[in-house]
Amino acid sequence: MNNFKFIDGGVTTPQGFTANGVCAGVKAATSAAITKAIKANESPVIPNGKRDLALIACDKPCAAAAIFTKNLVKSDTIYVTREHLQNGTAQAVIVNSGNANACNPDGYEKASAMAKLAADALDIDENDVIVASTGVIGQPLPLSPIESGVNALKDILSKDGGTNAAEAIMTTDTVKKEWAVEVEIGGKTVTIGGIAKGSGMIHINMGTTLSFVTTDAAISAEMLREALISAADVSYNMVSVDGDTSTNDTLAILASGYAGNAEITEKNADYFTFLEALTAAFKEVAKKLARDGEGATKLLICKVSGAFDEQAAKTVSKSVICSSLVKAAMFGADANCGRILCAIGYSGARVDDVRKIDVSYKSAAGEILVCQNGCGLAFDEEKAEKILLENEIEIIITLADGDGSAEAYGCDLTYDYVKINGDYRT
Amino acid sequence: MNNFKFIDGGVTTPQGFTANGVCAGVKAATSAAITKAIKANESPVIPNGKRDLALIACDKPCAAAAIFTKNLVKSDTIYVTREHLQNGTAQAVIVNSGNANACNPDGYEKASAMAKLAADALDIDENDVIVASTGVIGQPLPLSPIESGVNALKDILSKDGGTNAAEAIMTTDTVKKEWAVEVEIGGKTVTIGGIAKGSGMIHINMGTTLSFVTTDAAISAEMLREALISAADVSYNMVSVDGDTSTNDTLAILASGYAGNAEITEKNADYFTFLEALTAAFKEVAKKLARDGEGATKLLICKVSGAFDEQAAKTVSKSVICSSLVKAAMFGADANCGRILCAIGYSGARVDDVRKIDVSYKSAAGEILVCQNGCGLAFDEEKAEKILLENEIEIIITLADGDGSAEAYGCDLTYDYVKINGDYRT
Repeated sequence: MNNFKFIDGGVTTPQGFTANGVCAGVKAATSAAITKAIKANESPVIPNGKRDLALIACDKPCAAAAIFTKNLVKSDTIYVTREHLQNGTAQAVIVNSGNANACNPDGYEKASAMAKLAADALDIDENDVIVASTGVIGQPLPLSPIESGVNALKDILSKDGGTNAAEAIMTTDTVKKEWAVEVEIGGKTVTIGGIAKGSGMIHINMGTTLSFVTTDAAISAEMLREALISAADVSYNMVSVDGDTSTNDTLAILASGYAGNAEITEKNADYFTFLEALTAAFKEVAKKLARDGEGATKLLICKVSGAFDEQAAKTVSKSVICSSLVKAAMFGADANCGRILCAIGYSGARVDDVRKIDVSYKSAAGEILVCQNGCGLAFDEEKAEKILLENEIEIIITLADGDGSAEAYGCDLTYDYVKINGDYRT
Repeated sequence: MNNFKFIDGGVTTPQGFTANGVCAGVKAATSAAITKAIKANESPVIPNGKRDLALIACDKPCAAAAIFTKNLVKSDTIYVTREHLQNGTAQAVIVNSGNANACNPDGYEKASAMAKLAADALDIDENDVIVASTGVIGQPLPLSPIESGVNALKDILSKDGGTNAAEAIMTTDTVKKEWAVEVEIGGKTVTIGGIAKGSGMIHINMGTTLSFVTTDAAISAEMLREALISAADVSYNMVSVDGDTSTNDTLAILASGYAGNAEITEKNADYFTFLEALTAAFKEVAKKLARDGEGATKLLICKVSGAFDEQAAKTVSKSVICSSLVKAAMFGADANCGRILCAIGYSGARVDDVRKIDVSYKSAAGEILVCQNGCGLAFDEEKAEKILLENEIEIIITLADGDGSAEAYGCDLTYDYVKINGDYRT
């Protein structure tokens, strides 16, 4: 039985946190057309009405931790946030969409200025502000919409504003991503909530997303960091949309302590109860990210068991989820097992006996074995197609090498992925 | 000045070799519809007229070498061919398309049987036959069309049949791929020719293709193997269409010695002259494979210089060529430099200073710098689009870390890639 349960809510559900999101005009101000208008000294068009600036705040400083993209090319927001989190404390998050503030000569100054704008508005220390950006790379970040946006936001921060914040961090996302879980720790009800964005440029190396998580658990910054890394490892680090990782990925968590549980300062039972809930929530986020992958029509879950060890299982499941050919076949509801076997074979994982691989497809419409002992079966094509026409497909791989198991999350490759990314900037 | 020149021709251009290709009916016999008909005891439809069986032969045993896919899941043709090449000698190549003879319980027996059919027809030792297959994985290979096809082929092997052989190994290829070069070695004219197939499942780990190369050079099997590996390393190993590698990749070369040059048995000047011609030819094949990538409308060539070393340059160029986001942006003629910088950053290559990366796009329509010192430039969008609307695009990356340079070959990601692979088997 689980100690936790999912509840309606988001980043403002845990005690102490408020948030909101507004249309500040960053998106409008940085689209290629506008850049051109500015260059030509013409007046830029008005904002298109999409929210693009979010502020999340706590009424007191929180224990905080974050993990970031492993891409060598990083947005300066990451350098600024990393510095601000050195003391393990934060009180607010300011984040814009529409412009990644990456690969700009003045990126560091502008990321710092964003943090200062939020700090001044909230009357807190600028070192307690986490700053993040997402959007087009290599275009100057316009600060004036952020300044006016922050001023608007400080007056409307509320318990009801979490959904607007979730909306404000969306880029090519088609759905808002927010969630909350409740878990009992030491007799106290602890709440964890979060928002996430991510649709394209999603890959296994960290998770390639912006995600902001709040909790009222009492937990040290160090344990918060440990839990964050552990939970991300089997969730954010197991999801791929297109194999690309971005310059801006940030997964941050703030803990207010208002739940009143005995502070978690070591890996005791309370820690693992907290971790279990966090991990379950993050796995749901991973599925949300994959399901909303750019152009995706299907969520793919690749479950591997019987691998030599957990690492081999992870490597195999990720390889299958990342294969363009597997993804295109799933789009077409084509039960091609050759592509699965290929992706296992080139994964680089230790696979001791390729003549003992079984592969099944499973969905709400049933389950079908398509490969047994490494050989293709003459399966019922009609049944297979019916299974693959569902919008959530499990690819189940059974190896005979050991006890390792893992699951990875991905999506199909569709015409719309190409369409969305053929002309992203305009 | 080059010692070699490209000439019209193919696999039968070098002295001693004949070939041909026929429609044996393997493709028809293994399509999903036919499998179904056979299962239901209905009569299968007649072959669809596409050539699917090729035979290449020399009038005497040749020095021979081959390299294969590194995928753990291999077609049995590879095990059979590897055994046959242990003595460094071969005299013929039999290859079918339409069925990969991979992931089948009886694959080894059938691959051996294919070799024996060819050997018997040519009255040569079956150990001197190279056997290869390409097509759908996991469906039983029908031997009877191959038997009748071989019987037809033995009577029509000719100097003019090379083009038919090139056609017979095509799968989703839209153009036949054959080539020939002439090079003077020790006062003698040496000819090298070849055929290749490959369109999807093309990736850097070996080249993911079937390619058969003939030459009349006198060269030992050992030196032939060295040259094959060296030339493939900067050509076949630098091309990617979709990041997937197949179970069947085979690149084989046969040398008849008829050119009459002093036999190359060590890495002397003659060896390097031969290698130079072979490498130039293989690079052209790599471009042909990428240009004909499934659904591709553009050839992409990523040229990296100033890298820490050659390995770093290779890793960076391959990462860029493999990025789905870069490929989709090129399809849409979108001069997004963020995707290039991202792909450099997550490549895993040693890049010492990401603030010193320059990126340009170049084509027949001109050249444009879009990123300087790691930062996006406000470039002329119209000029950039004009450059990217051409069908051969160079992505030029200049690093400031060292002397390493490399180039990699790829193609754009298009709606048609998804269409072709959404339902490959029917």
